Amino acid sequence: MDQSLIFENAHLYVEKEASEIPWLKIFTKEPYKELGDVPKELRLQLFEVFDIIEDEMKKYYNPTKINMASFANMLPRVHLHVMARFENDSYFPNPMWGEKLRDAVLELPDEKEFYKRVAIALKQFSPG
Amino acid sequence: MDQSLIFENAHLYVEKEASEIPWLKIFTKEPYKELGDVPKELRLQLFEVFDIIEDEMKKYYNPTKINMASFANMLPRVHLHVMARFENDSYFPNPMWGEKLRDAVLELPDEKEFYKRVAIALKQFSPG
Repeated sequence: MDQSLIFENAHLYVEKEASEIPWLKIFTKEPYKELGDVPKELRLQLFEVFDIIEDEMKKYYNPTKINMASFANMLPRVHLHVMARFENDSYFPNPMWGEKLRDAVLELPDEKEFYKRVAIALKQFSPG
Repeated sequence: MDQSLIFENAHLYVEKEASEIPWLKIFTKEPYKELGDVPKELRLQLFEVFDIIEDEMKKYYNPTKINMASFANMLPRVHLHVMARFENDSYFPNPMWGEKLRDAVLELPDEKEFYKRVAIALKQFSPG
């Protein structure tokens, strides 16, 4: 079993990124180059899944800020990054792709419990 | 008149970022900290405006990739970045916040014409 997989339904899946911060990535199963290439209904579902993950991140981690991004420059396949940022993380206030500012050691609650909550919330949204 | 303002309606406005690449920023007039704090209808409008800008960027510049991001870590006020990326721009394939890889001199079509097209497309979407 792929340890990075947090959730999947017929059209989407959610993976975790290995990082000091809580960081999830939402992929469509069918690959698309740009967000505008994703069929409208699936694009709305993608942003619904983002909303749910953002909400769970806020409730569980109480982060300084949520960050969202869609780049896929190396491999042009649309996916959304969702990141919980903390004022004492290694890059804040820079984006996670920016200059590292310090060697942070974050003390965060158990990530396994967070992934469980995300999976439950996404299953309620999308039982299929 | 603010030279960076490309479009506004009752709820949103679009500004250009000074950059070597085509780069626009979409703000809600009412400030919100996180995307999930933006009322649902306005959040959908925000992503509609993103879709329209992405589409105009693709048609006018034929970029290698479109990038989108929402950070607002310095000043926690939601806005969406929309960037047209080129394989020979100064940072590609890194995000624009990442490590600079070369000193690019891009030869792009007239940006004034692009802003005009964006404004026309957004007015058609949102005549109000």
